[in-house]
Amino acid sequence: MTRLFFLFTFLIGSFYASADDGYRLWLKYDLLKNANVRAQYQPFTLYIAHAATDPVTSTAAKELQTGLQGLLGKSIRLQSTASTAPGGISLELTTTPQPNLGTEGYSITTQNTRVKISANTPSGLLYGAFALLRKIQTATPLSKIPETSVPRVQLRMLNHWDNTNGSIERGYAGASLWKWYELPETVDPRYRDYARANASIGINAVVLNNVNASARFMSREYLLKVKAIADVFKPYGIKVYLSVNFAAPRILGKLKNSDPLEPAVRQWWVDKASEIYGIMPDFGGFLVKANSEGEPGPQDFGRTHADGANMLAEALAPFKGIVIWRAFVYKADPKGDRFKAAYEEFKSLDGTFLPNVVVQVKNGPIDFQPREPFSPLFGAMPKTPLAMEFQITQEYLGFSTNLVYLAPLFKECLDSDTYVKGAGSTVAKVIDGSLHQYPISVMAGVANTGSDRNWCGHLMSQSNWYAFGRLAWDHQLSSSAIADEWIKMTLTQDAGAVKTILAMMERSREVYVDFTTPLGLHHIMGQGIHFGPEPWLERSARPDWTSIYYHRADSIGLGFDRGINGSNALGLYHPEAIKQWSQVDACPLPYLLWFHHVPWGKKLNTGRSLWDELCTRYYTGSTAVGTMQREWAGLKGKMDAEIHADVLGRLGAQQREALWWRDACVLYFQQYSKMPIPAPFTPPSRTLEEIKELVRIYQFR
Amino acid sequence: MTRLFFLFTFLIGSFYASADDGYRLWLKYDLLKNANVRAQYQPFTLYIAHAATDPVTSTAAKELQTGLQGLLGKSIRLQSTASTAPGGISLELTTTPQPNLGTEGYSITTQNTRVKISANTPSGLLYGAFALLRKIQTATPLSKIPETSVPRVQLRMLNHWDNTNGSIERGYAGASLWKWYELPETVDPRYRDYARANASIGINAVVLNNVNASARFMSREYLLKVKAIADVFKPYGIKVYLSVNFAAPRILGKLKNSDPLEPAVRQWWVDKASEIYGIMPDFGGFLVKANSEGEPGPQDFGRTHADGANMLAEALAPFKGIVIWRAFVYKADPKGDRFKAAYEEFKSLDGTFLPNVVVQVKNGPIDFQPREPFSPLFGAMPKTPLAMEFQITQEYLGFSTNLVYLAPLFKECLDSDTYVKGAGSTVAKVIDGSLHQYPISVMAGVANTGSDRNWCGHLMSQSNWYAFGRLAWDHQLSSSAIADEWIKMTLTQDAGAVKTILAMMERSREVYVDFTTPLGLHHIMGQGIHFGPEPWLERSARPDWTSIYYHRADSIGLGFDRGINGSNALGLYHPEAIKQWSQVDACPLPYLLWFHHVPWGKKLNTGRSLWDELCTRYYTGSTAVGTMQREWAGLKGKMDAEIHADVLGRLGAQQREALWWRDACVLYFQQYSKMPIPAPFTPPSRTLEEIKELVRIYQFR
Repeated sequence: MTRLFFLFTFLIGSFYASADDGYRLWLKYDLLKNANVRAQYQPFTLYIAHAATDPVTSTAAKELQTGLQGLLGKSIRLQSTASTAPGGISLELTTTPQPNLGTEGYSITTQNTRVKISANTPSGLLYGAFALLRKIQTATPLSKIPETSVPRVQLRMLNHWDNTNGSIERGYAGASLWKWYELPETVDPRYRDYARANASIGINAVVLNNVNASARFMSREYLLKVKAIADVFKPYGIKVYLSVNFAAPRILGKLKNSDPLEPAVRQWWVDKASEIYGIMPDFGGFLVKANSEGEPGPQDFGRTHADGANMLAEALAPFKGIVIWRAFVYKADPKGDRFKAAYEEFKSLDGTFLPNVVVQVKNGPIDFQPREPFSPLFGAMPKTPLAMEFQITQEYLGFSTNLVYLAPLFKECLDSDTYVKGAGSTVAKVIDGSLHQYPISVMAGVANTGSDRNWCGHLMSQSNWYAFGRLAWDHQLSSSAIADEWIKMTLTQDAGAVKTILAMMERSREVYVDFTTPLGLHHIMGQGIHFGPEPWLERSARPDWTSIYYHRADSIGLGFDRGINGSNALGLYHPEAIKQWSQVDACPLPYLLWFHHVPWGKKLNTGRSLWDELCTRYYTGSTAVGTMQREWAGLKGKMDAEIHADVLGRLGAQQREALWWRDACVLYFQQYSKMPIPAPFTPPSRTLEEIKELVRIYQFR
Repeated sequence: MTRLFFLFTFLIGSFYASADDGYRLWLKYDLLKNANVRAQYQPFTLYIAHAATDPVTSTAAKELQTGLQGLLGKSIRLQSTASTAPGGISLELTTTPQPNLGTEGYSITTQNTRVKISANTPSGLLYGAFALLRKIQTATPLSKIPETSVPRVQLRMLNHWDNTNGSIERGYAGASLWKWYELPETVDPRYRDYARANASIGINAVVLNNVNASARFMSREYLLKVKAIADVFKPYGIKVYLSVNFAAPRILGKLKNSDPLEPAVRQWWVDKASEIYGIMPDFGGFLVKANSEGEPGPQDFGRTHADGANMLAEALAPFKGIVIWRAFVYKADPKGDRFKAAYEEFKSLDGTFLPNVVVQVKNGPIDFQPREPFSPLFGAMPKTPLAMEFQITQEYLGFSTNLVYLAPLFKECLDSDTYVKGAGSTVAKVIDGSLHQYPISVMAGVANTGSDRNWCGHLMSQSNWYAFGRLAWDHQLSSSAIADEWIKMTLTQDAGAVKTILAMMERSREVYVDFTTPLGLHHIMGQGIHFGPEPWLERSARPDWTSIYYHRADSIGLGFDRGINGSNALGLYHPEAIKQWSQVDACPLPYLLWFHHVPWGKKLNTGRSLWDELCTRYYTGSTAVGTMQREWAGLKGKMDAEIHADVLGRLGAQQREALWWRDACVLYFQQYSKMPIPAPFTPPSRTLEEIKELVRIYQFR
């Protein structure tokens, strides 16, 4: 009572904490407002029972207790023995494995006012518990509570690009969550809250450090720090992985090199694996960025990616650890086409990797652009497990000032057809392992979390973390169903507001594409400031880091000819896939300039010329941001005031940025098209030089 | 009611927020536990009245209302008209200025159960309100409520070394508080909480950006972002300042150079000042790091620091803005003594600066070491206002893993006697302007704040922010009185616990000195990892960034001879000051190796040889950390459990680091002394090579 009184005075006695700061994410568990809705769940609120004594099952039970306490306003008894009495919820491990539940699946059944969550493993029980809570939190009718669900992908993984100094490469939500200097003695309570959020959406694997990896992480000093985090994650069913620096044997071990065929090097990794698993028996494995953007790798010694990956795989195999080897490689070749680089390096290695190696491929062939065709590698490696690498953090999608819901982007790639085994060979079926019977399946997302109080900078970006987890669990879920859940858990259950927000989220990615890179434009963002425009970028440290390399604007037209008379990157796809893109007249407009150099005056199927269509996209895209602003403003009173104000402010910033992109791009490309801004649009009131100056300012250190 | 119910369920319905996360700093305003104590304040809780309608006075009244609501558990009426009725608190501006209250001072009087806060300005009322709250929060008896207090220094300033990308140079508490990408549209509510904390300790000036300044801040784009922050600070009596890049006229303005005697350059700054004040009429002025560590400056064009400062001062003068020009300059000279550099560059410029220029000097001659003698410049510039620059962030004092209370360090410098106008010419009297009648007085502290929930990383480091503010207001306060206030406001009012914590804080800085740089050692920390040891550092980009440059260990002895036969840096002080340090036998031990190269076997006044004394300090210093750990562990139950656990964890990390320093230093110096570790101490169980390896690990990217 004193404690509660203290908390009470804390709230009313200070400026703080009286508004929702977004820290609780989608796990709000506020009392359900509708008493009738609450009442329907009353029949099973006598107890929560579980006979299993492992930490993960205990977590499941405690999460249920905490969540229901909030949602129903009722304290429910925890009982650490089995119960079949009516009126409660029981968590039950199967006595013999049920094939329909897989390793981590669950079933929720209701019988005689008892709710039973069954699973083959404690992790399954945990996911079942969170599923039940989600259903109650979204006020699901009792009849829709029963459900059986099994994850389609084994490793549902976040990749953190977090550095030892607390910075995050492509992080827009503050500093790293991991406080290396304080660890292992000080364990931030936030680590648990992070694990909890992940478990609630099925994420079961986390790579803690940047793929541009410090060798520090292979030292005992750091492994003990990592262990302290792993210990917090374990009761939430999450395994820790580390990115490794391929040169660690030289840097840390002081060997003369890191050649993967050198016995001393191989032994160093064998010993290191043994040390790691001595410290953390549940350690997951390694993620490796090698011979990419200056990182060390096996090619430094004339060896192949497979030589490198297999050496590490051999060291980890005795402990059932895995190696995730990234395919994000490209050489600086002004005459080449970066689009083809990963394919050309990896295709020929198919079938040469050890069984505990997975090759991780970015969704598109370039680099997480607002829209890309799927990477041709997804149709080219039937004998090698391929992992999907999505980017949740909005490196090229407006940082944390832009409202962009990414599930449609993720789905677009997953639903693409590779045709590798005929029609219906979707990317999703490749990476979930079902098409080629891969022994391991992985979906990874580059995390958007940071130390900002609301975790993701933009509150609406929490939906991207959420959607990634849900899609990694089940890529058949629709992006709107996921958004609907998320909105109801995070923002509001007001039906009108849910509808408005849902529509806004669903179109947000197209809006972003329209005002930045419509019609298949790509990689024309600012150098160093990826959230702003710089189509005029002509010189960089590498030719394939400029903008002109990609847009190829000239007096004739715009776009990168990747057909048979161009780079023929198209030729990397299966014939049926090629067909959809190869004819300029038939190519869907979202991909047009990815594959064709199109004349400015060319009439498109919209009835407009390329130039007019381009301008139309830039103008309507930036106008749509204003519409989102107005719609959001109209939601005042339908959600927490602080959250409402924060998102509204960011929509204002997005509006400023959208006009920046629009003006930059139409004025820049107009130099080549020599055509007027079409009616009814008003030409920008500022000059291209003024816009360039603004971009220049953002590039001062 | 719904709102409160929501909050209530929020608290009990989730894992979060049930413990104290340190966000509220010293402004906790929890209900005073002792009902008798509360009762004594009841007679003046009928109303809070103020006739003034300005925003600062309104803030004062609202702060009083909020604070007393929490402390006394009673809602007090706000009344925006004057009142002389008994039973309340009134905030009254003087009708004619009272000289004894200065510009920002206040008096609190009690008469007929009315409490009156008077001041000549709204800021004075705000400080008076916070003073009254502080007294009540620390349960001060009614008889001790009356007080008159006037700040001794005009500008009590924080310097943020925050970068545009959100990183903080020498920041150990997460990312920057300032979210430049979201501004000006999104205004983080935390900006107000920050302003409030500063106002509560009298800080009235803030430099938002790093002295290694980006030219971005002089662009209109960024000035509008700065204005959004300035608008939040204004009702708290805080003015915003900016660090400027001296080359801005070239970088941003595209002029051919930034020569301060070039008319176009001068005009650029005149125009820029006019633009800035058009946007922010209350803008404070510029802070400049020029010709220091690679930053641009007037010397690039053969001009002096005065030429540069005066150009800017002329531009700001019409708006009453000031220029704060840093004296932290040193040339890379392997034969020189960095100790002398600032003096040699600035002494001769005394009297050549315009009246709105202040020269800001770091407390010591090198760079914020755990202990330094005061900078000789403090005794050398009678005609130029000198600002004090302290470092609150613990760059060389253990980052955010070490408990080090800095008030004793600040006081030690402030109380040092320069003898510039005879005995009693303390540094404090120089910088508060009383000794030389400076027209402007400034005390600046390099901030230790960041986005970490508890602001400072180490909860105990909040005391350093607090102490800096209190000492900038009144350098005559004792460090123990300040700590006593802070503990009672932040941690506990349990008398025994207060005593234990106070003692721990008071000795913490000596403990840190002992296990890192005892007896006047300095600058032997790791390169790039300033929290660890690297006395063996021999090569760096500059000779004066190595360790051997400073400790000068050889077969004969240890220390830097700065006497007449050495660099004669001692000669920069006044004769009376020199006297205390010049004789090796009389030199106080804390400064011994700052000024003397002392033979290993030299008997010190402790009765031990230099070598034995050195070892004794390293061993007893690291042992003292273990004692602190035990003492802190014994405080369990006397404060919030989360805070207790967090600090205890950090003391564990500090213990690990202390042993690292001890072993590194005794083993390294032993190579020169060739003497055994004296009894009763046990030689380190690890080798110097092992320690070096550990340091090496922390230097991998």
